Amino acid sequence: MTRGRFITFEGGEGAGKSTQVLRLVARLESAGHEVVKTREPGGSPGAESIRDLVLRGAADRWSPVTETLLMYAARRDHIERVIRPALSRGAWVVCDRFADSTRAYQGAAGGTAPGLIAALETFVLEDIKPDLTLVFDLPVDIGLARAHARAGAEMRFESKGAAFHERLREGFRAIAEAEPERCALIDASGGMDEVEGEVWRAVSDRLTIHG
Amino acid sequence: MTRGRFITFEGGEGAGKSTQVLRLVARLESAGHEVVKTREPGGSPGAESIRDLVLRGAADRWSPVTETLLMYAARRDHIERVIRPALSRGAWVVCDRFADSTRAYQGAAGGTAPGLIAALETFVLEDIKPDLTLVFDLPVDIGLARAHARAGAEMRFESKGAAFHERLREGFRAIAEAEPERCALIDASGGMDEVEGEVWRAVSDRLTIHG
Repeated sequence: MTRGRFITFEGGEGAGKSTQVLRLVARLESAGHEVVKTREPGGSPGAESIRDLVLRGAADRWSPVTETLLMYAARRDHIERVIRPALSRGAWVVCDRFADSTRAYQGAAGGTAPGLIAALETFVLEDIKPDLTLVFDLPVDIGLARAHARAGAEMRFESKGAAFHERLREGFRAIAEAEPERCALIDASGGMDEVEGEVWRAVSDRLTIHG
Repeated sequence: MTRGRFITFEGGEGAGKSTQVLRLVARLESAGHEVVKTREPGGSPGAESIRDLVLRGAADRWSPVTETLLMYAARRDHIERVIRPALSRGAWVVCDRFADSTRAYQGAAGGTAPGLIAALETFVLEDIKPDLTLVFDLPVDIGLARAHARAGAEMRFESKGAAFHERLREGFRAIAEAEPERCALIDASGGMDEVEGEVWRAVSDRLTIHG
């Protein structure tokens, strides 16, 4: 049994990741793959209960360091219960946000020490590393306008102000630049079909699809 | 303003820590100190909600690594909101369990990698280190019998079997042996007044008490 492939979607608010996750999952399933669609924070019952705790209450309820630790607790549970078993049985895992979101939100934008995040990546992720990360990039004002337009949007990070979101965007761009073999920077400012085409090119160029 | 002193109580189940915490707090207050009595996991509203999440459900709901991360998330919140502000204003902080419990429960007994725990101590505790740690030690069978006798005792760890509790005891003893300047090993097998005397000798020998 070949290990499955692990694809993550990353980027700031309003980048349209969720729509593109659905479209990619449909294309991979059409190609004959078993696909596990999941998301972070959350993705397993334990991790979802940690998600509830993190997202409940005021935006400053938790400091960036506490939030980093809660995110990694949720991530560990998600890896143990969902991601690792799926990859082991040969399924493809498509995940909306993963470890790069901690680097960008709590790290680059929130100020958590890079040393803590690096240690967590080493000891908590162990060998679980995305085969491909699609980093959705678009100007902050466009992303926030799109996020505001969503009905029932989670406004916790949207409320943090433009400077936070600029640091966030730079954080994600820096990750894509530092690890070009793992990451593809996706221009998310276009229409849905255009972005879908860009995602599919990145996936089919870099990973071997069935059929 | 002189920084306050930070005293932690550590040890396995049924060691009688909670009673001795109360007695020490009373003696320090009689000596004229402002004392903040607190406990882990918990001690701040955020940390108490993480505690609820950790202790709810089956004993194997969380893996040792996930539990380590949840404990450190709670600890960081507790430090930020309670411990650091109290020490800064000159109060003494007496805490029932702290970082050594993670070393012993999730580390020595649970198998979490020492490297993860060491990284968390560096990046999450920063400069918050106990001035004195009282390590309560007693044979496992006596401790478990005492814990079982308590009405409404939290049975999550009690149920883990004798081998777990032997590793736990050895873990705590190893901490006391490795850091004799910070730690005093307390023989917890005696009566309450006897143990109180031992605690008070350790505190007054090592720290300067008012009056």
